[in-house]
Amino acid sequence: MGIVVENSPRAAQETVAGLAAFGVATVHEAQGRKGLMATYMRPIYAGERVSGTALTVSVPPGDNWMIHVAAEQCREGDVMVVAPTSPCTDGYFGDLLATLLRARGAAALVIDAGVRDIADLTRMRFPVWSKCVSAQGTVKETVGDVNIPVVCAGQLVSPGDIVLADDDGIVIVERQAAQSILQASAEREEKEARIRARYATGELGLDMNDMRPRLADKGLSYVSASERSKG
Amino acid sequence: MGIVVENSPRAAQETVAGLAAFGVATVHEAQGRKGLMATYMRPIYAGERVSGTALTVSVPPGDNWMIHVAAEQCREGDVMVVAPTSPCTDGYFGDLLATLLRARGAAALVIDAGVRDIADLTRMRFPVWSKCVSAQGTVKETVGDVNIPVVCAGQLVSPGDIVLADDDGIVIVERQAAQSILQASAEREEKEARIRARYATGELGLDMNDMRPRLADKGLSYVSASERSKG
Amino acid sequence: MGIVVENSPRAAQETVAGLAAFGVATVHEAQGRKGLMATYMRPIYAGERVSGTALTVSVPPGDNWMIHVAAEQCREGDVMVVAPTSPCTDGYFGDLLATLLRARGAAALVIDAGVRDIADLTRMRFPVWSKCVSAQGTVKETVGDVNIPVVCAGQLVSPGDIVLADDDGIVIVERQAAQSILQASAEREEKEARIRARYATGELGLDMNDMRPRLADKGLSYVSASERSKG
Amino acid sequence: MGIVVENSPRAAQETVAGLAAFGVATVHEAQGRKGLMATYMRPIYAGERVSGTALTVSVPPGDNWMIHVAAEQCREGDVMVVAPTSPCTDGYFGDLLATLLRARGAAALVIDAGVRDIADLTRMRFPVWSKCVSAQGTVKETVGDVNIPVVCAGQLVSPGDIVLADDDGIVIVERQAAQSILQASAEREEKEARIRARYATGELGLDMNDMRPRLADKGLSYVSASERSKG
Amino acid sequence: MGIVVENSPRAAQETVAGLAAFGVATVHEAQGRKGLMATYMRPIYAGERVSGTALTVSVPPGDNWMIHVAAEQCREGDVMVVAPTSPCTDGYFGDLLATLLRARGAAALVIDAGVRDIADLTRMRFPVWSKCVSAQGTVKETVGDVNIPVVCAGQLVSPGDIVLADDDGIVIVERQAAQSILQASAEREEKEARIRARYATGELGLDMNDMRPRLADKGLSYVSASERSKG
Amino acid sequence: MGIVVENSPRAAQETVAGLAAFGVATVHEAQGRKGLMATYMRPIYAGERVSGTALTVSVPPGDNWMIHVAAEQCREGDVMVVAPTSPCTDGYFGDLLATLLRARGAAALVIDAGVRDIADLTRMRFPVWSKCVSAQGTVKETVGDVNIPVVCAGQLVSPGDIVLADDDGIVIVERQAAQSILQASAEREEKEARIRARYATGELGLDMNDMRPRLADKGLSYVSASERSKG
Repeated sequence: MGIVVENSPRAAQETVAGLAAFGVATVHEAQGRKGLMATYMRPIYAGERVSGTALTVSVPPGDNWMIHVAAEQCREGDVMVVAPTSPCTDGYFGDLLATLLRARGAAALVIDAGVRDIADLTRMRFPVWSKCVSAQGTVKETVGDVNIPVVCAGQLVSPGDIVLADDDGIVIVERQAAQSILQASAEREEKEARIRARYATGELGLDMNDMRPRLADKGLSYVSASERSKG
Repeated sequence: MGIVVENSPRAAQETVAGLAAFGVATVHEAQGRKGLMATYMRPIYAGERVSGTALTVSVPPGDNWMIHVAAEQCREGDVMVVAPTSPCTDGYFGDLLATLLRARGAAALVIDAGVRDIADLTRMRFPVWSKCVSAQGTVKETVGDVNIPVVCAGQLVSPGDIVLADDDGIVIVERQAAQSILQASAEREEKEARIRARYATGELGLDMNDMRPRLADKGLSYVSASERSKG
Repeated sequence: MGIVVENSPRAAQETVAGLAAFGVATVHEAQGRKGLMATYMRPIYAGERVSGTALTVSVPPGDNWMIHVAAEQCREGDVMVVAPTSPCTDGYFGDLLATLLRARGAAALVIDAGVRDIADLTRMRFPVWSKCVSAQGTVKETVGDVNIPVVCAGQLVSPGDIVLADDDGIVIVERQAAQSILQASAEREEKEARIRARYATGELGLDMNDMRPRLADKGLSYVSASERSKG
Repeated sequence: MGIVVENSPRAAQETVAGLAAFGVATVHEAQGRKGLMATYMRPIYAGERVSGTALTVSVPPGDNWMIHVAAEQCREGDVMVVAPTSPCTDGYFGDLLATLLRARGAAALVIDAGVRDIADLTRMRFPVWSKCVSAQGTVKETVGDVNIPVVCAGQLVSPGDIVLADDDGIVIVERQAAQSILQASAEREEKEARIRARYATGELGLDMNDMRPRLADKGLSYVSASERSKG
Repeated sequence: MGIVVENSPRAAQETVAGLAAFGVATVHEAQGRKGLMATYMRPIYAGERVSGTALTVSVPPGDNWMIHVAAEQCREGDVMVVAPTSPCTDGYFGDLLATLLRARGAAALVIDAGVRDIADLTRMRFPVWSKCVSAQGTVKETVGDVNIPVVCAGQLVSPGDIVLADDDGIVIVERQAAQSILQASAEREEKEARIRARYATGELGLDMNDMRPRLADKGLSYVSASERSKG
Repeated sequence: MGIVVENSPRAAQETVAGLAAFGVATVHEAQGRKGLMATYMRPIYAGERVSGTALTVSVPPGDNWMIHVAAEQCREGDVMVVAPTSPCTDGYFGDLLATLLRARGAAALVIDAGVRDIADLTRMRFPVWSKCVSAQGTVKETVGDVNIPVVCAGQLVSPGDIVLADDDGIVIVERQAAQSILQASAEREEKEARIRARYATGELGLDMNDMRPRLADKGLSYVSASERSKG
């Protein structure tokens, strides 16, 4: 009773590429602190940043058949996003499937389950964000769905959304908002550069943003340690 | 009331060494997806692969006395497998014990608890797979057992079993099955090489393994995104 | 209703610096196996060792305003220790605040919550030990406290305590005990060097510490595997 | 920057009420094993079953202001579904808010965070499913959203969806599918009654569903224990 | 190297008893949302509320010897608070020790580890809050400390502090603040009674506390579902 | 490639029944603190105690087919012990299978995964110990094994072993040791009765077991709170 949705709409390639200039933390802030996957999702090796279009896959626990089905739907620059229908740590994906996905144009894998062959994946520089590492294999017995909306690591992902992932985690940008988020990210980055320059001189956020009166309003008080120990 | 079993039988050295040519994922598949320890067991540094004979140690929580007892039983190429009798995160093992174990011929440590001095262990290239890192020391007050069957990280390990560990985790191969598993691993590796070559050209598993009729039987259907949004 | 305590007493600088010669595991043993934070606290990159004076910050969940307040209290060599008032994974801290803290003299951050911009923090070599990595930002709405005693990752930390952190974790040394712990650490290190040399020759702890009679008293017995399988 | 969506569409009252005749397990099966929240969500007391319309609330960590905002939007029979924007265990809700929600017609609360005053809530028989129990209070400083789609305990919930909860957990039924799921649930219940009657006589599923040939095809074999111990 | 501190100061008995009139949630609020233990601490049976003086015990993992030592220090109305020096799930305490503690006047046990014989403890109505239930026994080999400050379930507890526990968890009230917290709790209870009466009529917190202007300031906006779906 | 082992040997019925007179904690102690399952295994309702013969089932994640196969092997008084080959929370078992198992003579279920229909199971008084409650259903696609040794919740269970379960958890007694463990349990119970009687009078374990000299040897010292605060 599974379904494969073909030819989902995609975000403009320059928007996708543009977001890769910014980190997950910046884009997440730029879109109002939304869209971040759970913190247990970690890269198998450090130092990658990937921006791509979500190719979503809903899989049964312990069954990776649908990854084969999804491979056929893969288009250049896609990030495959795999979500099991119940929590699972099995190793759905290894160097063989990475070889196939790379040949089909995939940019990366994001999976709320396990992966294996991580030494090989690292050598291939095939970027993967996963819940865990596990050599435990899977079967091919039960169908699931491709390119329907899924919840992956606590986050709704629709096919065609943009997936941005780096060492800080994974953020999902809705396709139709992507262009404006790209713009907002650029603005945020500029603003951060100005702040960074001032912080580097030791200027406090307290002063830069005039926080002292509001802190006092909230009741913050200062006392010296020597007075306090008397009290 | 502890017991130390001496002179346990061992797998043939060439079988143990032979398995090191294959990764944990391959061997685990080759023996029918059995024998894998839990995914929370991780190497303290990446890039090692070790194959050795299990020297098992059952320890009380927070007490590493039996590791000293077990050190005497250590033979060239042994992998010490330490399982506490109840969950514990303490650091049972550090660079001192690693120095001793190396001098006695041990190849590695697998411990369902904590280790410490990991910067030193990494410098020594002494391979360790553990549940966590902890500087918390242990006492030497209560006896346990050496070279009896233990459950470590969810997996039964008998003395003399083969322990294969790499970045994907740890798999246990029963001593008497080891020779046939070695053979099966070699066959699997060859088969994977052939699949890899075809995947690299973009050939789908769907076609290579003629999956389409069976997927259709299971009810998998295809629909275009444009039709679906109308529905 | 928050409070900022100013000019807390500090440990002598040479004591703080002296402790950095020893690892967390050694110091923790030297002070009687006390003061270690929970094992989920991990460095964002390997290979750092930091010794500094605790600048404590109690923060609400999801609110990093007090880190700005605490930045003003930062003195050369301080380690900021941040504890949320209830469990939180949010990313309270990133490369902007690291720039500010470094400008104010801070040596490191220890936080029982999340951090972000870890690729940048790693490039800056700004050492951080945290519960997790998260790009999830925080607000600036609710006050907390600076330089009061806090419980961070299961450990009491008072302002002015010494924070020693490395790849094995984080240990807290009380200010007034610091000088004697430094001495005890040096003695322990010497003792360990002697043990290490003997272990390197394969001499057993069983013999070096005359453990055999006590093990026998506790009922430890030896049996050969061949006898046992008959039984 | 929060938003409150008013007058969301609702499922027909008889459909909502009809589903309450069936348990979560039955309805979840009837809709194709979809829509179940994570297993850490538990009722604060046993024996309740509630079916209602979802009133969704997205809240910051440690801040329950939006529950007050949402209370105004509550209509007879609503189940308030509260999801924090990052993981939080705080006690957002106690007997005071339960008193208010009951007065406004709410049937229950489902919250991916903590609740408190559970002895009072139990006495009131106000049904709550939560991640944990915590007396830790919250602030009222930051806005969120009401009646937008949220992910709660791993499950997408849109305003107007039907929330069915009992001792087995919580399942979400999409508003537009609710009528057909109700039908399918009734059919499933009937079928289960027939199966139950036959199981009660000791008739095996193996025979009732003619599983033996398929098991043999999959390679299942039978061996007696006595033969096996010889082998 | 353990220490037993005798004759610690205690809070006035009427203060201790007075706090039992209020729940953990109320007292926790009354003292400024401080002092709550972690949410994994749960009662072994529902419906108890206990207020007593803390008798603190620091124990090694898997070793309950110090509970015997502490039993001698027990005074009428004490709540024994047991914290292991590293995480442990073992069953330190069962019906035998409960019999002894009851005979010595103890009111309850709070333990950041396991307990056993919970059916018997329930029959005895001996109140226990624990991290888990475990039949795993402990040894008596290593000393610890009695009546020193401990961190239990994330909370600092000093001997003589007041421990208040009920179905919502456990809160610690510092001895010297107890009288004023008792007063504040009574005031809070009265205030809550007034709020409860108004909530029962359906009056909103939004109106009662004039929240609307501040919500608007923060940018909260209202939109109808029908407009939104057009947008 | 699954296997079903038929006609496993069983412990004598009077031994199995005899153990039910003792609790899990007592039997666990009587057999040397071995054989206890992990503490996350909990009964779905309180107050049961079951002793039976283990009928072991190894199941794939998310697939309960083998429970049907195992049902045929069930003999009067068996406790079905189900272990998934990788961690899984799905609801493998509900009131239908409980009806069948009861008709086939099963006494209880122990499962390192989820169960559902717990309100019905409670009404039926069908005892279940499980890792969690989950309405998430399973498929019937992949074979596993029946009556081979399995590791369930961290404990090795062989077919024919005795499973004793109550509110404190689950302990496994090896078939061939059962008669002597029964004897040892009775002796322990008698001894505990004598201790309980003395504890009830307030007699300390310190005195009853002459612990004071050994505590002093270990370095335990006593100090009064008043002296300590001077120091």
